[in-house]
Amino acid sequence: MDIGFIGLGNMGHGMATNLLQAGHRVTVYNRSPEKAEALAQQGATAAGTVAEACDSAEVVFTMLADDRAVESVAFGEAGIVASLAPGTTHVSSSTISVALSGRLAAAHADAGQRYAAAPVFGRPEAAAAAKLFLVAAGEPQVLQPLTPLFDAIGQRTFVVSEEPHTANLVKLSGNFLIASVIESLSEAVALVTKAGVDRQQYVDILTSTLFSAPAYHTYGGLIARRQFEPAGFAAQLGLKDIRLALAAGEQLQVPLPLASLLRDRFLTLVATGGGHLDWSALATLADRDAGLMSDDPA
Amino acid sequence: MDIGFIGLGNMGHGMATNLLQAGHRVTVYNRSPEKAEALAQQGATAAGTVAEACDSAEVVFTMLADDRAVESVAFGEAGIVASLAPGTTHVSSSTISVALSGRLAAAHADAGQRYAAAPVFGRPEAAAAAKLFLVAAGEPQVLQPLTPLFDAIGQRTFVVSEEPHTANLVKLSGNFLIASVIESLSEAVALVTKAGVDRQQYVDILTSTLFSAPAYHTYGGLIARRQFEPAGFAAQLGLKDIRLALAAGEQLQVPLPLASLLRDRFLTLVATGGGHLDWSALATLADRDAGLMSDDPA
Amino acid sequence: MDIGFIGLGNMGHGMATNLLQAGHRVTVYNRSPEKAEALAQQGATAAGTVAEACDSAEVVFTMLADDRAVESVAFGEAGIVASLAPGTTHVSSSTISVALSGRLAAAHADAGQRYAAAPVFGRPEAAAAAKLFLVAAGEPQVLQPLTPLFDAIGQRTFVVSEEPHTANLVKLSGNFLIASVIESLSEAVALVTKAGVDRQQYVDILTSTLFSAPAYHTYGGLIARRQFEPAGFAAQLGLKDIRLALAAGEQLQVPLPLASLLRDRFLTLVATGGGHLDWSALATLADRDAGLMSDDPA
Amino acid sequence: MDIGFIGLGNMGHGMATNLLQAGHRVTVYNRSPEKAEALAQQGATAAGTVAEACDSAEVVFTMLADDRAVESVAFGEAGIVASLAPGTTHVSSSTISVALSGRLAAAHADAGQRYAAAPVFGRPEAAAAAKLFLVAAGEPQVLQPLTPLFDAIGQRTFVVSEEPHTANLVKLSGNFLIASVIESLSEAVALVTKAGVDRQQYVDILTSTLFSAPAYHTYGGLIARRQFEPAGFAAQLGLKDIRLALAAGEQLQVPLPLASLLRDRFLTLVATGGGHLDWSALATLADRDAGLMSDDPA
Repeated sequence: MDIGFIGLGNMGHGMATNLLQAGHRVTVYNRSPEKAEALAQQGATAAGTVAEACDSAEVVFTMLADDRAVESVAFGEAGIVASLAPGTTHVSSSTISVALSGRLAAAHADAGQRYAAAPVFGRPEAAAAAKLFLVAAGEPQVLQPLTPLFDAIGQRTFVVSEEPHTANLVKLSGNFLIASVIESLSEAVALVTKAGVDRQQYVDILTSTLFSAPAYHTYGGLIARRQFEPAGFAAQLGLKDIRLALAAGEQLQVPLPLASLLRDRFLTLVATGGGHLDWSALATLADRDAGLMSDDPA
Repeated sequence: MDIGFIGLGNMGHGMATNLLQAGHRVTVYNRSPEKAEALAQQGATAAGTVAEACDSAEVVFTMLADDRAVESVAFGEAGIVASLAPGTTHVSSSTISVALSGRLAAAHADAGQRYAAAPVFGRPEAAAAAKLFLVAAGEPQVLQPLTPLFDAIGQRTFVVSEEPHTANLVKLSGNFLIASVIESLSEAVALVTKAGVDRQQYVDILTSTLFSAPAYHTYGGLIARRQFEPAGFAAQLGLKDIRLALAAGEQLQVPLPLASLLRDRFLTLVATGGGHLDWSALATLADRDAGLMSDDPA
Repeated sequence: MDIGFIGLGNMGHGMATNLLQAGHRVTVYNRSPEKAEALAQQGATAAGTVAEACDSAEVVFTMLADDRAVESVAFGEAGIVASLAPGTTHVSSSTISVALSGRLAAAHADAGQRYAAAPVFGRPEAAAAAKLFLVAAGEPQVLQPLTPLFDAIGQRTFVVSEEPHTANLVKLSGNFLIASVIESLSEAVALVTKAGVDRQQYVDILTSTLFSAPAYHTYGGLIARRQFEPAGFAAQLGLKDIRLALAAGEQLQVPLPLASLLRDRFLTLVATGGGHLDWSALATLADRDAGLMSDDPA
Repeated sequence: MDIGFIGLGNMGHGMATNLLQAGHRVTVYNRSPEKAEALAQQGATAAGTVAEACDSAEVVFTMLADDRAVESVAFGEAGIVASLAPGTTHVSSSTISVALSGRLAAAHADAGQRYAAAPVFGRPEAAAAAKLFLVAAGEPQVLQPLTPLFDAIGQRTFVVSEEPHTANLVKLSGNFLIASVIESLSEAVALVTKAGVDRQQYVDILTSTLFSAPAYHTYGGLIARRQFEPAGFAAQLGLKDIRLALAAGEQLQVPLPLASLLRDRFLTLVATGGGHLDWSALATLADRDAGLMSDDPA
């Protein structure tokens, strides 16, 4: 299939590579062109503009950092909506707001184009290994032809709704759940640390018993070791996603008190200079509020 | 070994049975005597009083519901402290407060006896199958002879401290983490339910991906099905444990804002008539506050 | 002075009337024209469009419900920015977002016009009696000529900054403080009600002692009597203002955990059908969560 | 009347002095005897023991720091309950738990004595000036003879219940409301400070308008000036009172989410070394979390 791929960050690079390796013709675009050129050496075509990436594409993927980045490539004179041919499909895999996903759906419908949302769960290593989980939403006739593409990218695809923005909601809810794990571990680890328990042993107990899930392994380890750099996912992105989850909750009239707590914690971390740290650095707040300094030997 | 076992509820029954089957001589006591008699048919000796269960015991286990129950058998003229011979050991497996565990340690030390705390993680089925996880704390010379007993009860024992009450803190922190899972799932499920996502499918997505841990399987399923009776663990016990975690946090000067949120949710559930429901019935509050009635078809 | 006045709701009607009575020539505009006609009988000129209200005005006031209403009259081809003559002034008295106030400042500057923010504290009766408090912000040369107008409307004007949007922030913070009073009273009244104390006597004690301020008198009385209709200020507007305060806090990187709590309470009230009630109906949530039904005789 | 007075701290000293000046015979006791001797020079009798202060008293007041202090003088072989003659009255004015007040009521009833609770609102200056507000509860025949004593101490007495512990609940709820004022002001002041508004001017605006109550004047000024020493009322006592309010709420099954927030804030302040500061030092947390250092020039 002829595919355009816009956004070659840590996640997008792996996804585009896997589409290439599955035998598709992939035209790639990235704001910093050197990333596109690297993929060109593996057989992709490097596009100089968004429009060029859309030109002959049957499907265009976007995998970008936030609403603003997606808006900047989607709308405007030379954007995706203006450039895609009628009947072709835009697949948005970015973690964006429910509201923007709705606006994209409307804009593509107006332009006679198709739109699906397919955000992913997984870290960059999973993207590289084609082990992502995709949460997809869109009309059946839109999603059906995308199946081989999703299979090239991930290990499993869950279709949750015919309304694309619902997939974005599910993705945001997932990040809310991970952030909840981080905060609960942060508090629990601060508590037992102050009682003299070894942080790493404590996390090992948890992950050997009731909490044997990836989220607890990954974040429990980082919190036990107080290792918050380099960031796998930065606190300021965590703040953004919790804000989007709360905005969706307000739109749907669903109070989310735990999300509100998380928002304030992330905002505190960002306001006190930790926005660039991994989002598990929420643990520094639990330690700080307990009078445990980060250079504490405990 | 000669063992006394006090408290034959859902958990204690399985534990005492496994000690018997490992070849120990077990004298059992329960406030309602019929439970002791049932075990007597499997080879245990039924004691009529706490003192009788302590009489010739080298080790006495207690597995009771709360602080009050433990206080009532431990202290007083015919209690465990008054009845155990010098040099023998009391193993407290109940989920009790850090403060009471400290008082027990002091009382046994004054009486020339030994004391260890060994609370457990696991549901009644795990107790029956000798698959519990034990979190043990006490002096090495106290714990060492207990190893074969712990092995008869559980699949693994984690020694966390020489101070017995620290094991109780770890146990309480574990229940705090489970309650955090329940609240976060409750909010997320209410959110996606209102967007039209199937609750069960949503939980399946979570447990197939980042949240493949027993806590998410168990509670996610109950929340998706809104099945809160019969209670595996009642909301009023959840309230008690969160209260004890907060009390330990106040004693150690560790703020636990997520635990505070949980306490208020459990208290609301109890105050509005749901104290007897499973603690996953926190989900009814998230549904209610979102305007989703429990008889909603969604 | 030649004044345009846009927005003749409960607040704007009183303000425009007082400007008239102070001897100014006032051209009034309201979306529903009958309100403008009523004022015309008192000497105002009724304008048929926003542009007409701006036509010969030296100063145009806007007093509207929310961001959307202000945007609809300010921007666009026949809006205030397009219609005001260079050198004239727009005074925004509406409770709007900090962000919109900033956009208005920029738009007027681009158009060679002046802009000041002057939101008010006070209920409709205070507006009618020229007893409002104004919180004004803008450049000194913009504010100075407005002094007689502010004096005609209110009993006192506080100038807080040269940046207009700062006045909007102060106004939002004031509504946050009032909502905090409502929530704290709601919880305290539920607590003492359940102990058998008379609600009205309790509020009388508070307002006779440490809490002898208008906010406590007004809302304490409503909460004691559970009198939430008709709304003096509706819960959905309270939700909006708390949301705007949180948005300003996020922009300035100031966590506001109490505001987060209030947001969730208002959202719960709105989601369960109480958006039209007075914002003091937060008390129904405290009562409900305590198991006190609203038809309780206490 | 013959009066015993136990507890001559900042509050008790003023109260005992006013009873003396109203013409009563007052026997005073304080753990540190020099305070009793100072009052003896004004005509009081200094007692060497609690029992001596009770000996010929018709009424004994206690005005002490916390539950522990009251328990230590009330119970035991030479305590108030053991020492008072039948038919005489103990008036507890300390801010103690609802539970302890209940225990005192029961103990005095068992001993054929009378008991009333009469906690007070007001700072030491108000105690010295006989300007306190008393919240009294007890049986009418117990309270009626106390009227002249209450009039000698305070400017007004509110009788809230026949059950003494209800007065303690009302007192605790009042401290909860004051702490709510402190937290809300702390957040609002941090917000406007970061926008460049003068802190003192902001507080002046509030107290000139909707918040013209003593609580806002007192704490607004301290927060604006960041003046937290010496403590008028220490943060660790604030933590204690919020804990007691939450305990009463749990007993009565009334969730108090704002009190939970306050508890965590006070606990954070205490855990990070600020327990000795005035309780308005909650504002240091709002400033800190916003990235405003206390040495910030703003």
